Amino acid sequence: MGAGRIAVTGRLKDRFFATRKLTLDLVAPLSDADATVQSMPDASPAKWHLAHVTWFLESFILRDHVAGYKPFDDDFAFLFNSYYEAEGARHSRTARGLITRPTLGQIRDYRNHVETAIEAHWHALPETALTLIELGIQHEQQHQELLLTDILHLFAQNPTCPAYWPEAILRPVSVASSEMASWIAGPTGLLAMGHDGCGFAFDCEGPRHEIFLQPFVLSSRTVTNGEWMQFMNDNGYGEPHHWLSDGWSWVQQAGIAAPLYWQQDNDGQWLSFGLDGLRGVDPNAPVTHISLYEADAYASWAGARLPTEAEWEVLASTDAADGGHQLDMAGPVRPKATDDRAFFGNVWQWTGSAYRPYPGFCAAEGAVGEYNGKFMSGQFVLRGGSCATPRGHVRASYRNFFYPNQRWQFTGLRLAKDA
Amino acid sequence: MGAGRIAVTGRLKDRFFATRKLTLDLVAPLSDADATVQSMPDASPAKWHLAHVTWFLESFILRDHVAGYKPFDDDFAFLFNSYYEAEGARHSRTARGLITRPTLGQIRDYRNHVETAIEAHWHALPETALTLIELGIQHEQQHQELLLTDILHLFAQNPTCPAYWPEAILRPVSVASSEMASWIAGPTGLLAMGHDGCGFAFDCEGPRHEIFLQPFVLSSRTVTNGEWMQFMNDNGYGEPHHWLSDGWSWVQQAGIAAPLYWQQDNDGQWLSFGLDGLRGVDPNAPVTHISLYEADAYASWAGARLPTEAEWEVLASTDAADGGHQLDMAGPVRPKATDDRAFFGNVWQWTGSAYRPYPGFCAAEGAVGEYNGKFMSGQFVLRGGSCATPRGHVRASYRNFFYPNQRWQFTGLRLAKDA
Amino acid sequence: MGAGRIAVTGRLKDRFFATRKLTLDLVAPLSDADATVQSMPDASPAKWHLAHVTWFLESFILRDHVAGYKPFDDDFAFLFNSYYEAEGARHSRTARGLITRPTLGQIRDYRNHVETAIEAHWHALPETALTLIELGIQHEQQHQELLLTDILHLFAQNPTCPAYWPEAILRPVSVASSEMASWIAGPTGLLAMGHDGCGFAFDCEGPRHEIFLQPFVLSSRTVTNGEWMQFMNDNGYGEPHHWLSDGWSWVQQAGIAAPLYWQQDNDGQWLSFGLDGLRGVDPNAPVTHISLYEADAYASWAGARLPTEAEWEVLASTDAADGGHQLDMAGPVRPKATDDRAFFGNVWQWTGSAYRPYPGFCAAEGAVGEYNGKFMSGQFVLRGGSCATPRGHVRASYRNFFYPNQRWQFTGLRLAKDA
Amino acid sequence: MGAGRIAVTGRLKDRFFATRKLTLDLVAPLSDADATVQSMPDASPAKWHLAHVTWFLESFILRDHVAGYKPFDDDFAFLFNSYYEAEGARHSRTARGLITRPTLGQIRDYRNHVETAIEAHWHALPETALTLIELGIQHEQQHQELLLTDILHLFAQNPTCPAYWPEAILRPVSVASSEMASWIAGPTGLLAMGHDGCGFAFDCEGPRHEIFLQPFVLSSRTVTNGEWMQFMNDNGYGEPHHWLSDGWSWVQQAGIAAPLYWQQDNDGQWLSFGLDGLRGVDPNAPVTHISLYEADAYASWAGARLPTEAEWEVLASTDAADGGHQLDMAGPVRPKATDDRAFFGNVWQWTGSAYRPYPGFCAAEGAVGEYNGKFMSGQFVLRGGSCATPRGHVRASYRNFFYPNQRWQFTGLRLAKDA
Repeated sequence: MGAGRIAVTGRLKDRFFATRKLTLDLVAPLSDADATVQSMPDASPAKWHLAHVTWFLESFILRDHVAGYKPFDDDFAFLFNSYYEAEGARHSRTARGLITRPTLGQIRDYRNHVETAIEAHWHALPETALTLIELGIQHEQQHQELLLTDILHLFAQNPTCPAYWPEAILRPVSVASSEMASWIAGPTGLLAMGHDGCGFAFDCEGPRHEIFLQPFVLSSRTVTNGEWMQFMNDNGYGEPHHWLSDGWSWVQQAGIAAPLYWQQDNDGQWLSFGLDGLRGVDPNAPVTHISLYEADAYASWAGARLPTEAEWEVLASTDAADGGHQLDMAGPVRPKATDDRAFFGNVWQWTGSAYRPYPGFCAAEGAVGEYNGKFMSGQFVLRGGSCATPRGHVRASYRNFFYPNQRWQFTGLRLAKDA
Repeated sequence: MGAGRIAVTGRLKDRFFATRKLTLDLVAPLSDADATVQSMPDASPAKWHLAHVTWFLESFILRDHVAGYKPFDDDFAFLFNSYYEAEGARHSRTARGLITRPTLGQIRDYRNHVETAIEAHWHALPETALTLIELGIQHEQQHQELLLTDILHLFAQNPTCPAYWPEAILRPVSVASSEMASWIAGPTGLLAMGHDGCGFAFDCEGPRHEIFLQPFVLSSRTVTNGEWMQFMNDNGYGEPHHWLSDGWSWVQQAGIAAPLYWQQDNDGQWLSFGLDGLRGVDPNAPVTHISLYEADAYASWAGARLPTEAEWEVLASTDAADGGHQLDMAGPVRPKATDDRAFFGNVWQWTGSAYRPYPGFCAAEGAVGEYNGKFMSGQFVLRGGSCATPRGHVRASYRNFFYPNQRWQFTGLRLAKDA
Repeated sequence: MGAGRIAVTGRLKDRFFATRKLTLDLVAPLSDADATVQSMPDASPAKWHLAHVTWFLESFILRDHVAGYKPFDDDFAFLFNSYYEAEGARHSRTARGLITRPTLGQIRDYRNHVETAIEAHWHALPETALTLIELGIQHEQQHQELLLTDILHLFAQNPTCPAYWPEAILRPVSVASSEMASWIAGPTGLLAMGHDGCGFAFDCEGPRHEIFLQPFVLSSRTVTNGEWMQFMNDNGYGEPHHWLSDGWSWVQQAGIAAPLYWQQDNDGQWLSFGLDGLRGVDPNAPVTHISLYEADAYASWAGARLPTEAEWEVLASTDAADGGHQLDMAGPVRPKATDDRAFFGNVWQWTGSAYRPYPGFCAAEGAVGEYNGKFMSGQFVLRGGSCATPRGHVRASYRNFFYPNQRWQFTGLRLAKDA
Repeated sequence: MGAGRIAVTGRLKDRFFATRKLTLDLVAPLSDADATVQSMPDASPAKWHLAHVTWFLESFILRDHVAGYKPFDDDFAFLFNSYYEAEGARHSRTARGLITRPTLGQIRDYRNHVETAIEAHWHALPETALTLIELGIQHEQQHQELLLTDILHLFAQNPTCPAYWPEAILRPVSVASSEMASWIAGPTGLLAMGHDGCGFAFDCEGPRHEIFLQPFVLSSRTVTNGEWMQFMNDNGYGEPHHWLSDGWSWVQQAGIAAPLYWQQDNDGQWLSFGLDGLRGVDPNAPVTHISLYEADAYASWAGARLPTEAEWEVLASTDAADGGHQLDMAGPVRPKATDDRAFFGNVWQWTGSAYRPYPGFCAAEGAVGEYNGKFMSGQFVLRGGSCATPRGHVRASYRNFFYPNQRWQFTGLRLAKDA
């Protein structure tokens, strides 16, 4: 969580408490055990997410800006710091799932304690602290998405396939939107990209700067499950010449032959596991839970390529960032077939751009500024948000980033071509 | 859990339900999260132990001997089988800690369901089934001990050092029993060892057979923490010539320099973590949580050796197997300094004998007989039971076995010498 | 080895045989054993390099363009293909060092056989084949550099520190060039980069395309050993905030505290191991054998950054690519302090640019075109060539690439800053 | 190499130089590269064997017993010590294959130098040194066998299947000895085993001690390749109930389905690779290159068991230890079908006995006594010698030992049963 440039709206307090409440709604179905287990090193226990975002507020708002504030528990700074080297020693990331105590109930008490203290001192918070409140909202929204994808990963390890939100009915397979994708031409020549400084943004989104774009087109929509099955049927996972060299090694070593969470039933039909349990794959919905390697191989197979983040941004910046299928409330999250052609929502879109600094980038100072710069090696940029991204969180300039083999987020792709 | 030769006593039913109750008492302080997490591949979640011993009864008593019995949950055979190849596919051992559902509450319901069904059908159980009830008791007692040691291991990973039974008061360091150990001479010549067939025993304890023993002595008591500290102070962990070659590799690679769960406070005093939390090391209590490698190195340093299991058994067989410090009820378990010179209880005693079959051994047939023979490579025998062994479970002929690097059980040692 | 766009000069044949001869000169001091062992998976045995470049010529020139040519040995295609999937199965890369037979002598015979056949058929080779001869030269030059760095790595594993070219005298530490670096301003605005199509280039160097550069400066020279020692003395390897997150993990896990091949003598003086043995570190020579992580951390410590490859190229393109300290003949190779300010030679310079395709890039077709596109994930670009690069091989547009933790090449850095 | 009790014969000097010469004969076909590469951590380069046995003589004979002797090369003690902790630091075992220099020629010079010095000083060697000469012979004989099996392992990694001794003609498959095995009854009751002190023996072979044996029978010969194929055809590698638990894990993880070095040709015929290249499996020859796990599983499948080492020894002690198919000179070594029923030679026979000390065992003091005691965990005893064991080296009391998964030695099995 890095420093952001913020224009605080009058509604900051409402947004803050609404964000805090949404987090609790998202974890309502969790048992203490569900909230404790860590299913892989990349994921964190739900309890850890709940506590970590609270530790962030407790440290940077209450400790730093409220005189006489006493920490809720002295052990929590060690247990719930994530990666802020400046904040001192912290618990090993890979051992987060061994902490059965404090309990989920105690973590709820911790959340309540910190919220109550912030509420009580809200009127006296200095401008700097309000800036950090905004940052705290954005930070918690990021963890809301991670929380959902980490729970999904955990539940997917359970051979009994439990549904996190079991009430969701089996969605009839959509038929309307089998419409073919079309190509949208992008602007060319000397253009600008990056955040313009109005409203909140993370440091890595700026500075805004000139770029030169050659003629290109982007697909009008993301690749669907049905299209992905064609790739699979055409031996897409078995032909090395579609793949990046590292991707081919990954496919062979990890035995990859389908998107994450896909499995075949006894009749050979493809099902995918989600927070609403195991369901038939909808051919018209966007494909998701694919790695950059898979996205790149698909694009190669399709005679296309991935967009650069610049191409994506200049086209997406004309679209409404709060549109499309994003997270509005607790409940099953799955990408779905839609008729609109939103650039935002449904699935994060892998770009072909490595996550590196923009010209003129410099990291914010201090502990809260540790965030973005230090992750700028080995990762690729994703754009556009997903069905698990809290609505209002993303922007056209928003840069998400993951390693090219990671795919437990709601990740998909949109094709590009030279024009 | 292997086949046993049983003399069913009139009190079988009482013992059965008392055993089942003790298990529940042992897990009373557990939260759902505590019961779910697996802290290392060697350990299992408490929930798994609770369900596995119940699955054993459900399968071999109810399914096999009660007409029309319906399993509580069809998924459980897959989730809670341990290693019975003949019983079909089963969940990966290393992934047991990822099963957050069924919940601890549901596992309790499962236990209750199976107990109720056994109670209801008790009068009609055939002789074979009663034999398996006895086996089920012995099996559950084994898992009671594992349950305690696995919980201890889990809690030891928590940097906040939570006490499982926090009510235990800080034990004053004993002063009385600093008494020196003496040497007890064993019988020599042609002798017999192994279970004689009276009462229950596991298959690996027999057949009873002749052995020839040369003159030897055993120490009158197990090695104490105070003596172990002398070994440490004399650079025992740093001198390769005390160690088995594999042991020396292990010490260096794993960075071993003290028994498991020992740590030093700021003043350099040694503390050890237990189910009653972090407490000062009692110099007069038996050392525990040491590996065979450590036990062997200590014996070498002390100018002695480990006893063979034959030497141990012929001397211990004159002692009362239900004496000493063993598990009688739920509550903190720690080895303690005692004035009596029991061969049984307090700590399992590593022997220098590899776990191999006795002459004439043959494994019992069928699924319940898979147990013992197949583990007879790479492990060493331990004898005597521990403070975590349910009283009544061990015998002079009882053979426990672990790999030479394992030390999360209550394992200690007794010295031997040629006479 | 990818397809190149070539302007064949009249001297092609001379250059071809000179290149082949230089390879043999470089391996003259090698024993059969030296030429066989593989010291790490990233490196290949010298014998493999010698045979692989020959297999390349045998396959793409003789087999494809000389009617009736019989392979020297039918096993060699399997043993000495590197990564050309289209050319069929091949020997595992990590097991290259287990092939003691064929011997070095037999590989020399193989080289001779193929050269003789090419010489004999030269007059009849079609234009396509001559293009592949040029590619073969470039390919062999790349392997000449790898050959030297792989031998260096192998010899560095030998505790007796053997010198490959022992005749080199101990170089007196230079004193003249302690001159401070200055900053050179680069051009800004809309510029072009990438190969312009005149002369040979690898496919990844094009297409030439527009870029927009903001004001920047580059250092007039690369960072020296003396400056690196200041970084070390200032705890540069111990301060996490200088480092990329992945870099910090690497430093800690691999225990990195100095450039590769550095060691301290009993007086604390730094020595570095090279093909001329173990010698004192020259404070005025460019630092080398550093990873991208180290280069990035140093730049951060120095209040600067790494150049982008675009910045480097637009400035370097005014310099003579065949100048500076490059490889002219067999003999000890070490970066050395020089008074000139060449952009080329001495050490490869890490850029901050991920190795990704230029706009409009498309991979060449066929087996010889497998090369570049598929390596475009996870690696960073280096520019400028080194003391081990055959003179004439590099260009301003030349893109070398390695993973950010690799450092057995002659890798260094040049600082950049926003102006 | 441990201390031995020796009865020095008058022919010590002859035996010593004959042993030294045989070693050189065995490595005559080796190239420098063949002698340098290490094909797995369990194996050592031939060059290392040649130097190590020489270092042993140089250290314990020349350095310790010849005044003024100067080591041939001061680096060699570091490079060629094996595991003698008391002799100081030594080169990492797993990195032995990275030492390309000294060359094979230099190692031959080293051997010559040490032999010449011993010859020159022979007349003046004290009794203690002569005892160590005997130990040196035995030590070198052990390394002769390892040398052959390590070379075999190395050559087996080469996809071109080079024959070390190519002149060996394809052996016609024997037809005579298809004779069925019979059962030989062993003695029972109170017996003695262990070396009796006459002639050389390693420390672990004693003390001689009483044992009590129950009635048993041993097979009159070892299991043949033809019998092993029946086991394979009966799905022996696929049925878990035949296997030790650790063995079953090993089979599955390592994908084991046949003895080491076996492969099928295009017609499905089994071939096995040996030092004479790839040849058809002789159904009447003893099966070899099997692990303890495989031997145990076969015995279980056959309704039998492995003998204990006591059973084997009391029966074998009536046979001539220098009979059977053992190593007499350099040349292809393969187990072969024979009509005689020798207990010795052809293949080492796995026993079911863990390698542990005999009653009253104590390790010899000093560096040369480090040998045997410290390897007494995790390994199983093998008896009888093999076709690669120098004739005259083994005895009825001789205990060889390997881990239960190791199989690159010439290892086979003989069945046993309770009578």
